[in-house]
Amino acid sequence: MKVIIIGAGFAGLNAAKSIAKLKDVKIQIIDRHNYHLFQPLLYQVATAGLNPADIATPIRAQLSNYKNIEIILDEVIHINRDEKVVQTKERTLNYDRLIIATGAKNFYFGNTQWATLAPGLKGLEDATEIRRRLFLAFENAEKAQDESLRKKLMTFVLIGAGPTGVELAGAFAEIAHQVLAKDFRHIKPEQSQVILIEAGPRILPSFNEKMSARAKKDLEAMGVSVLTNTKVIDITSDAVILTDGKIETQTIAWSAGVTPSPLAKTLGVELDRRGRVPVDQSMGLKQDSNIFVLGDLAAFDTKDGTLPGVASVAIQQGRFMGKIIKADIDIKPKPPFKYLDKGQMATIGRKKAVLQVGKISFGGTLAWYAWLFVHLYYLIGFRNRFMVFLQWAWSYLTFKRGARIITPPRTSEDN
Amino acid sequence: MKVIIIGAGFAGLNAAKSIAKLKDVKIQIIDRHNYHLFQPLLYQVATAGLNPADIATPIRAQLSNYKNIEIILDEVIHINRDEKVVQTKERTLNYDRLIIATGAKNFYFGNTQWATLAPGLKGLEDATEIRRRLFLAFENAEKAQDESLRKKLMTFVLIGAGPTGVELAGAFAEIAHQVLAKDFRHIKPEQSQVILIEAGPRILPSFNEKMSARAKKDLEAMGVSVLTNTKVIDITSDAVILTDGKIETQTIAWSAGVTPSPLAKTLGVELDRRGRVPVDQSMGLKQDSNIFVLGDLAAFDTKDGTLPGVASVAIQQGRFMGKIIKADIDIKPKPPFKYLDKGQMATIGRKKAVLQVGKISFGGTLAWYAWLFVHLYYLIGFRNRFMVFLQWAWSYLTFKRGARIITPPRTSEDN
Repeated sequence: MKVIIIGAGFAGLNAAKSIAKLKDVKIQIIDRHNYHLFQPLLYQVATAGLNPADIATPIRAQLSNYKNIEIILDEVIHINRDEKVVQTKERTLNYDRLIIATGAKNFYFGNTQWATLAPGLKGLEDATEIRRRLFLAFENAEKAQDESLRKKLMTFVLIGAGPTGVELAGAFAEIAHQVLAKDFRHIKPEQSQVILIEAGPRILPSFNEKMSARAKKDLEAMGVSVLTNTKVIDITSDAVILTDGKIETQTIAWSAGVTPSPLAKTLGVELDRRGRVPVDQSMGLKQDSNIFVLGDLAAFDTKDGTLPGVASVAIQQGRFMGKIIKADIDIKPKPPFKYLDKGQMATIGRKKAVLQVGKISFGGTLAWYAWLFVHLYYLIGFRNRFMVFLQWAWSYLTFKRGARIITPPRTSEDN
Repeated sequence: MKVIIIGAGFAGLNAAKSIAKLKDVKIQIIDRHNYHLFQPLLYQVATAGLNPADIATPIRAQLSNYKNIEIILDEVIHINRDEKVVQTKERTLNYDRLIIATGAKNFYFGNTQWATLAPGLKGLEDATEIRRRLFLAFENAEKAQDESLRKKLMTFVLIGAGPTGVELAGAFAEIAHQVLAKDFRHIKPEQSQVILIEAGPRILPSFNEKMSARAKKDLEAMGVSVLTNTKVIDITSDAVILTDGKIETQTIAWSAGVTPSPLAKTLGVELDRRGRVPVDQSMGLKQDSNIFVLGDLAAFDTKDGTLPGVASVAIQQGRFMGKIIKADIDIKPKPPFKYLDKGQMATIGRKKAVLQVGKISFGGTLAWYAWLFVHLYYLIGFRNRFMVFLQWAWSYLTFKRGARIITPPRTSEDN
C-alpha cells in the first residue's frame, strides 16, 4: 500500500513513523520545508532566546532509519480524489491512502494588508522577521533625534492574548527591562512600552479565570500593559487603531487568529465554519475512505466540542495513524481515536507560568519548571534538546540572549 | 577627543576596546550590522556545522561595559577629510580622529554577474545562501528524473584554494560522504563530486610547498578533485567554464579574490594596486594625521612585503590603537606597530589540518586539535565559545550536522 502524507509537522511526522513500522507499506511525505519545526518554541526564536536551528530538525535526519519512507521537498497545490493523485508544484503523485496534515496559517480576518505590518508566528521566517523588527526598533530609537519618534519606536504591540501572545509579551518585556538594560547610550530600554491587546474579556481564554487573572497580574508586574475587551480596527505602518484611540508603534506581532491551510478547499467537501475538514472518529474523510485529515486542519468532534488546534492533539493523532492503517490493510473496522487531554500551559517569564490539567491549575515557579521540562522533553532530537537546555541554562544564569543578530528581511511572504 | 571607528570587525572592535580605556575619549563605532562576526568560522555556517548566532555576537553586548562607546547601526558612504566629518546613510558625524576598518569584500575580477552565480563567503548572508544552495541541490537531485540533471546537481565547485576554499571543499565532502549518507532514497550522496579549482600551481599558496601537498593529499583522500593551474573563464547558471572544458554544476562558491571596501576611494588619496590604503608604521594615513586605517583595508609595509589580510593582523592592529591614540593625546611620537606572526593554519576535515609557524610546519591530528583550540580560544564571548565547543563535540561524536535548515534566499545583495 502506498501512503502519501502531506506536511511534516507534529501530525505528519508522527503518522509517518507509526505507519512505517507496518509491513508492505511505502510512504511518501511531502513538505515545502526540509525541516520539522517545534512550533511551541517559535516565540523563543522571535525573541532571540534560541537559534532557528535549535527548534528545527531536518526531516531527513528524523526519518533516515525508515527505509520505506521517501521525503519530498515540494508543495502540494491540488488533490484529485477521483484519480487518487496529488498535484505538487513539480509533479503528480499517486496514492492508495492520503493523509493530510498541513496545519494552519495566520489569519487576518480578511485584512490581508495587515500581514506585512503585523507578522504572525507560524514559521521560522515569521520568527526571524519579528526578531529583526524588535531589535531594529531599539537601534533606530537609539539614533532617533525626535522624542515622539523615539517613543513610537519603543512601543511594542502584541495582538491576541492566547499562549503565543502572552509568551511574546513576557519575552519582549524581559528583553527591554533586563537583556538590553545596559546596551544603549541615548535611550533607556526599560522605558519601552509593551502592550498586549485582546478582543475578549480576558487573556489566555482557554484557561480558567483564575489562571487568566494570574497571568495578567504576572505580565503587569513585568511592565506589560494588558488591554482586554479591546478591538483592533486597523493597522497602519505607524499605528494600531483601536475603537477608542490609537497606539503609535512600528513593531507589531499578530497572534489573534489562524485559519486552516487552503489545501482543504481542493478536496471538494463541505468544510466547517472555521474552514476545517470534518472527519469521522478515525480521522477519515466521511466522503472518501482513502483520505485522512489530522491536526489543525481537521474538525474532530467530541462530546466537549471539536478538538483544539494544539500540538498534543496533532501528535496523538499522528501516532494513532499506524493502528488505523493497520486495520485498513487487514480489512478490519478502524479503531476510533481517543484524545487524552494532558492539559495546557503557558510561560510568561522567568519563574512565571500557568498550568492547567483537568481541575488542577496553578501558576508560579513550579508551573514554570513543569513547562520547561515538558518542552525540553518533547523537543524532538537529542541534540536539539541538549543544546536548548544549555542555552536556557545560560540565559537563566546571565540574563543574556545570544541570538540577537539582525538578518535581512525575508523575500517570500509565506502566509 | 572624539574618535569615530568605522567597522566592528576584528580591527574595529579591538581598537574600540583599547581606546576606550583612555581618559577623556569619546568613541562612536559605526557598523551596518548589529553583530561582530567571527569570519574564520563562516565556512562552518555555510556547511551547517554551526548556527549564524554561534559566530555572531551583538556589538552592543561586546561593548556594553564601556560607557564612553556609542554604537551606531548605520553605513558610512563618504568621508570628508577637510571638514572632518563622515557621511552615513542617515546623518553626518564629526570626528577628531577617524579609524577606518571596513575590511574587504568579494571580488570577481570585473565579472560582477558572477556574484549571484557563485556567492563568496564574507558575511552571514553569504554563508546561509551557500548552505541553502548546498542542501537544496541534494533535495533537487533526489527528485530529478533525469540522470544528467542529477549528476549536475550533485557536482559542487569551489573556486579559489586559499584556506576558505580548502575548508569549504573538505566540509562539502564530509557532508556528502558521511552526514547525508543514509538520508536519501533515490540518490547516493557519496557519489557527489566536489571539485576545488585553483588558478595557481598549488593549493594554500600562503603555506609552504610541503603543506600544500599534504592538504591536497588529504582532500583527495576525502574524495575532493583538486584542479590546480586551472583558470575559470566564465560562470553560467549551469556550468563553470574552464580554458579546456567545462564543469556542469549549479552550486558554486567563490573564494578566489577579495577587494578592499569601496569607502577607501572617498579618502581622495592614492591607493595601492590592490585598492588598499597605504599607511605609515603607526597605521596613520600619510596625508592626514587624523586618520588611521586598519586590517584588510590597509597596505602596511614591512621588510617582507605588506601584511596579509588575515584576522591576526587586524586584531593586533586594533589592540595597538590604544597606544597610538594615547601618544596622540599626549602629543608624543606615535609608536610603530610591530606584527607578531603567529603563523597560519587551515582545517581540511576531521583530524585533518595543516599548520605553519615560522619554519615549523606539520599536518594531521595534532594540527587539527591546535586549529580547534585556537579557534575556540579566539571566538569572542564565553557563551559562544562554550556552545560552539559543545556543538563541535556533538558533531564529532555523531557525524551529524544540526543546522541543515534551508531558509529562503536573501533579499539584498551585499557584495
